[in-house]
Amino acid sequence: MTAAAVLTVPMAHPADTSGLAVLEPLGLTADDVIAVVAKSEGNGCVNDFTRPMAATAWEAECPGAITVVSGGTEGVLSPHASLVVPSVTSAAGPGLAVGVAATDPIPWWELGRPAQVDAVADAVRRAAAGALLGVGEVALAIVKCPLLTSARVAGAQAAGHTTVTTDGYESMAKSRAASALGVGVAVGELDAAAVQRGLDGDLGVWSAVASTSAGVELQSCHVVVFGNSAASDSPYRIAGGVMRDALDAAAVSALLEVVDADAELVQVFAKAEPDPSGTVRGWRHTMLTDSDVPGTRHARAAVGGLIAGLTGLPAVYVSGGAEHQGPPGGGSLAVVSKVAPVPS
Amino acid sequence: MTAAAVLTVPMAHPADTSGLAVLEPLGLTADDVIAVVAKSEGNGCVNDFTRPMAATAWEAECPGAITVVSGGTEGVLSPHASLVVPSVTSAAGPGLAVGVAATDPIPWWELGRPAQVDAVADAVRRAAAGALLGVGEVALAIVKCPLLTSARVAGAQAAGHTTVTTDGYESMAKSRAASALGVGVAVGELDAAAVQRGLDGDLGVWSAVASTSAGVELQSCHVVVFGNSAASDSPYRIAGGVMRDALDAAAVSALLEVVDADAELVQVFAKAEPDPSGTVRGWRHTMLTDSDVPGTRHARAAVGGLIAGLTGLPAVYVSGGAEHQGPPGGGSLAVVSKVAPVPS
Amino acid sequence: MTAAAVLTVPMAHPADTSGLAVLEPLGLTADDVIAVVAKSEGNGCVNDFTRPMAATAWEAECPGAITVVSGGTEGVLSPHASLVVPSVTSAAGPGLAVGVAATDPIPWWELGRPAQVDAVADAVRRAAAGALLGVGEVALAIVKCPLLTSARVAGAQAAGHTTVTTDGYESMAKSRAASALGVGVAVGELDAAAVQRGLDGDLGVWSAVASTSAGVELQSCHVVVFGNSAASDSPYRIAGGVMRDALDAAAVSALLEVVDADAELVQVFAKAEPDPSGTVRGWRHTMLTDSDVPGTRHARAAVGGLIAGLTGLPAVYVSGGAEHQGPPGGGSLAVVSKVAPVPS
Amino acid sequence: MTAAAVLTVPMAHPADTSGLAVLEPLGLTADDVIAVVAKSEGNGCVNDFTRPMAATAWEAECPGAITVVSGGTEGVLSPHASLVVPSVTSAAGPGLAVGVAATDPIPWWELGRPAQVDAVADAVRRAAAGALLGVGEVALAIVKCPLLTSARVAGAQAAGHTTVTTDGYESMAKSRAASALGVGVAVGELDAAAVQRGLDGDLGVWSAVASTSAGVELQSCHVVVFGNSAASDSPYRIAGGVMRDALDAAAVSALLEVVDADAELVQVFAKAEPDPSGTVRGWRHTMLTDSDVPGTRHARAAVGGLIAGLTGLPAVYVSGGAEHQGPPGGGSLAVVSKVAPVPS
Repeated sequence: MTAAAVLTVPMAHPADTSGLAVLEPLGLTADDVIAVVAKSEGNGCVNDFTRPMAATAWEAECPGAITVVSGGTEGVLSPHASLVVPSVTSAAGPGLAVGVAATDPIPWWELGRPAQVDAVADAVRRAAAGALLGVGEVALAIVKCPLLTSARVAGAQAAGHTTVTTDGYESMAKSRAASALGVGVAVGELDAAAVQRGLDGDLGVWSAVASTSAGVELQSCHVVVFGNSAASDSPYRIAGGVMRDALDAAAVSALLEVVDADAELVQVFAKAEPDPSGTVRGWRHTMLTDSDVPGTRHARAAVGGLIAGLTGLPAVYVSGGAEHQGPPGGGSLAVVSKVAPVPS
Repeated sequence: MTAAAVLTVPMAHPADTSGLAVLEPLGLTADDVIAVVAKSEGNGCVNDFTRPMAATAWEAECPGAITVVSGGTEGVLSPHASLVVPSVTSAAGPGLAVGVAATDPIPWWELGRPAQVDAVADAVRRAAAGALLGVGEVALAIVKCPLLTSARVAGAQAAGHTTVTTDGYESMAKSRAASALGVGVAVGELDAAAVQRGLDGDLGVWSAVASTSAGVELQSCHVVVFGNSAASDSPYRIAGGVMRDALDAAAVSALLEVVDADAELVQVFAKAEPDPSGTVRGWRHTMLTDSDVPGTRHARAAVGGLIAGLTGLPAVYVSGGAEHQGPPGGGSLAVVSKVAPVPS
Repeated sequence: MTAAAVLTVPMAHPADTSGLAVLEPLGLTADDVIAVVAKSEGNGCVNDFTRPMAATAWEAECPGAITVVSGGTEGVLSPHASLVVPSVTSAAGPGLAVGVAATDPIPWWELGRPAQVDAVADAVRRAAAGALLGVGEVALAIVKCPLLTSARVAGAQAAGHTTVTTDGYESMAKSRAASALGVGVAVGELDAAAVQRGLDGDLGVWSAVASTSAGVELQSCHVVVFGNSAASDSPYRIAGGVMRDALDAAAVSALLEVVDADAELVQVFAKAEPDPSGTVRGWRHTMLTDSDVPGTRHARAAVGGLIAGLTGLPAVYVSGGAEHQGPPGGGSLAVVSKVAPVPS
Repeated sequence: MTAAAVLTVPMAHPADTSGLAVLEPLGLTADDVIAVVAKSEGNGCVNDFTRPMAATAWEAECPGAITVVSGGTEGVLSPHASLVVPSVTSAAGPGLAVGVAATDPIPWWELGRPAQVDAVADAVRRAAAGALLGVGEVALAIVKCPLLTSARVAGAQAAGHTTVTTDGYESMAKSRAASALGVGVAVGELDAAAVQRGLDGDLGVWSAVASTSAGVELQSCHVVVFGNSAASDSPYRIAGGVMRDALDAAAVSALLEVVDADAELVQVFAKAEPDPSGTVRGWRHTMLTDSDVPGTRHARAAVGGLIAGLTGLPAVYVSGGAEHQGPPGGGSLAVVSKVAPVPS
């Protein structure tokens, strides 16, 4: 039984797990939670301690869940958690199936390098298999992966290793990149040559289903995969797409149109980034030259504003830094909806 | 002859006026520019020196123009200037008419107080009259007004006066508020009692056509009013509306639908702000509790992302801090378009 | 027995309590800790969640301790905790005595108002009495007090009350101010008339021993008082002073000279703030007009740089926002040292 | 005649050149200014437009001067300009001599690479020769050098070149590094092998007299060298040293003791940076993991607080980012003083 449901609850502060109260009317408890995918209200960068705060709180309450916390609720975005639980209602399928997995701890000197790509690819395959999803059925693979701090770099150096970078903010990009390439390998989008080009910096190499995010709060990579499976009778569904750039309202609208007329929009998962060219639609943007506000914060605010405006939902999952997760300047996109369940 | 055109040009840096090259093919020169309404790439707050930098540059090149520079191109927004010039083509009216005016310098101790309301109201009336626009025909009144710095507060105190606040960032809100109330008076939306309630902090008092912005670079208030006038045969038109909140995609779409099928979208002017309730559509936002990024920056990024996505134009004018310029959390909105000119 | 010792331990991250290992060689346990006075690495402002993170961690480990966490380790300052424990060695007195107390929760509408002044004054008196310190013997009174958020303001309004301000960052200043005035009342520095002038904004009203700090993580006020008492045979001592402005190296040096030649410098507690005049020693500073970095962050960095340079200790307690805690632009100052204990 | 004087004047805003009024009583005019070395109040990073604003203003007024503007007056630092002019009084030498030079524009693809090292070395030699200073007599060599923006990187790539980095903030470090190595070559501190090690990232390679700063406002490198020369009868003197780390009060005090008892302290020039190890004196600092405030801002605030406290002067030149300009975590240091002139 892999049928999954997604319940989005507000968070009043980074350690707020009171949204678990939504489970009781469904006959579920915190022990049933399969995954928590949350947005917390920090800066989403190196020193965003709202992520470990939230992860610690959710993990204490939901010991069986894999936790992913993405920092940064800029603009209209609202701090929230999406609880993935077994579906307690049913409808004609294929319905939503969700699988989870974790890698072993990534040594700091392997971060952003081939070993991380391989570890994530393996975890994605295991998560998909656990949900009875063929790798081609994966519509979204969310990965939470580590970053480097001054202390971690020093630790690696003391152990006789170099790290992929000594800069913490840059390490987040490198870690997201390796995770995204790992997703692409697992689902068959990328071969070994493409991965190597990606690691060498070719941003034209990307996965359409990867959504990766780095944080100080973990040493291994957490993976949550979503897809529609014939084996699932959940009334929830997921549809995936890609934003071509940060202005791609059409991509969002297209996915919203896929939602059945009588279905309810439940959640949107999007990746966003400052276009690395420094321009969008031919006009200069300033996200990469602003030394006061990190570029990922700008991108989340802008794309969050667009998606929240188009859907009316501020509690959507918009994550910053989309290296190899969609075309440069764009990002992966997925929409979860719920059709009317069959009366039981 | 009041027929006006709006030409949007990119700015490669805050002092870049090279966009004036767009005038030559039209048979115009910098001396013909009536107004420059620009977005520069600073933080849009107290110490945003990109505003004086841009204002100085444009004023040096366009000595006859009134200049308004709004700081802050967060997210996908692109630094640009909208040059208001006489229309050199024509179409069946009513067409766009634009008028300008300036107040006398506002003493620092009058900032944010009734004297500023009165001065702005008077300037708006003069600007409208200059454009042969009835006050009821004003679709948009942009005001650039001063703010307080530590030195200005000290100067006022040394002169035996108090100021409306001693905090620079708060003074921007107070100055925008008084200017907005002045617009509301001038166009007949607000009476004296309403103004008083507004000055007392009632955010339910607002003008639908005011778009005000504060800056360190001026001591008087600059006013630019836009409307469609039967006396204008410009092929440019303006249509005004109001965003009810920062997610109000419907308000934007409604205005875009007003644009004739064969017309070209030229520019959007929008005000944005963090909803003062701390929530939007019932969900908590964090714009007002983020001590790292000012709330106006968040709001510009989010609303800019929405408008740019809906229009495909990143070089739109989105200004932060919408006190009394639309309902709380929302803001005034206007769209300029251009129909096909009549062959001459 | 009131003899107290102060042990400063590093914090590797905001929830790091591993420094408690310092207790075992002394024959102490976490249950013996009387107070934890820590500096965590957030922005020290409204959304600094490193404070609740650290407070939660220390309170879980040290259930008998009063916890004060001040956010912000700008510049060379290092995240750390000062553990106040019973002294296990002795020397000829008077030695350090430390007392603690807490107020009841402060209703949000009382924050920054007379009721908070009274509550803090009462708590300071209780803390001093508990340490057998006469109020005139109090050399330092550290207070941690609440702040307002959007939700708290909305809660107060829903209950039919107004709050002292609706701005979160400003509420921190108001809360610090009321706490400081309460300290001044308790130790006899300020009378009722002075308190009223202080609440009305007269920054010339101040306590030389108050060190107050606001945070989102508590609803009551936590108080820790330090003094030398004839009843204490601790080899630790405290000496208090005042920095006249942020450049007052002489005040720091004077206190350091008080430290016995054969004593060890243990900890420095200092308050810092941007001079509200906008100048220091006649030169303009930009701490109050910088909209990118809050003024309290600037002040901590600068005064922290001075004190750390003069002492060689980066793990000192420098807290930002010194309203009524020393003269405008300056702040209270105290130095803890340890003389050689008498062999037992 | 190379005798030089240094006059420090306040700047009320980034374009304020009113301090030139100090020249008239000396019988000098703006045309006599040899160099302007200023601190402006921006963030000191990629998008610090206060630098071009100040440079443009000073260059317009002082057409014969070389201009260096370093952004960032964090903490107690005060925006100011040091005007280098011919000395109009005299004293027994050796006295201060100052020379200036500029390189040709550095192609964007050469930035941070050997060509920049060579160009700066050549300019330093020319500047020293112009001041009749032997290269061994150079006590301080200030260099202002370019940085990369998104547009500049794109321009280089369009021309078929790679750049040393694609990240603007990192390009500032690379440019400062190459300039510092160039200084070291010119004054004989570094040989070709050391330069190569430095370009490869060895921070143990450094010049004790280099003070380099990057900015968007120029394409060539500006050089100002200071030293005491037997050929100069100026009553001004310079003494150079090195801060071993950001807490090195002793280095500052040692230089201040060099100042004659009856001399006046005029100006201090210091470089500062976050210690790249992530620690200072064994304690963790958070300057490199703070994604809200760039590390160079932290470092300027802290070292500025120390130097201003030790000297009583907030209008000192403290510049952030000290790669190869002193030991890692420390920085070059120089003090200008003035002895009593001989009555003429």
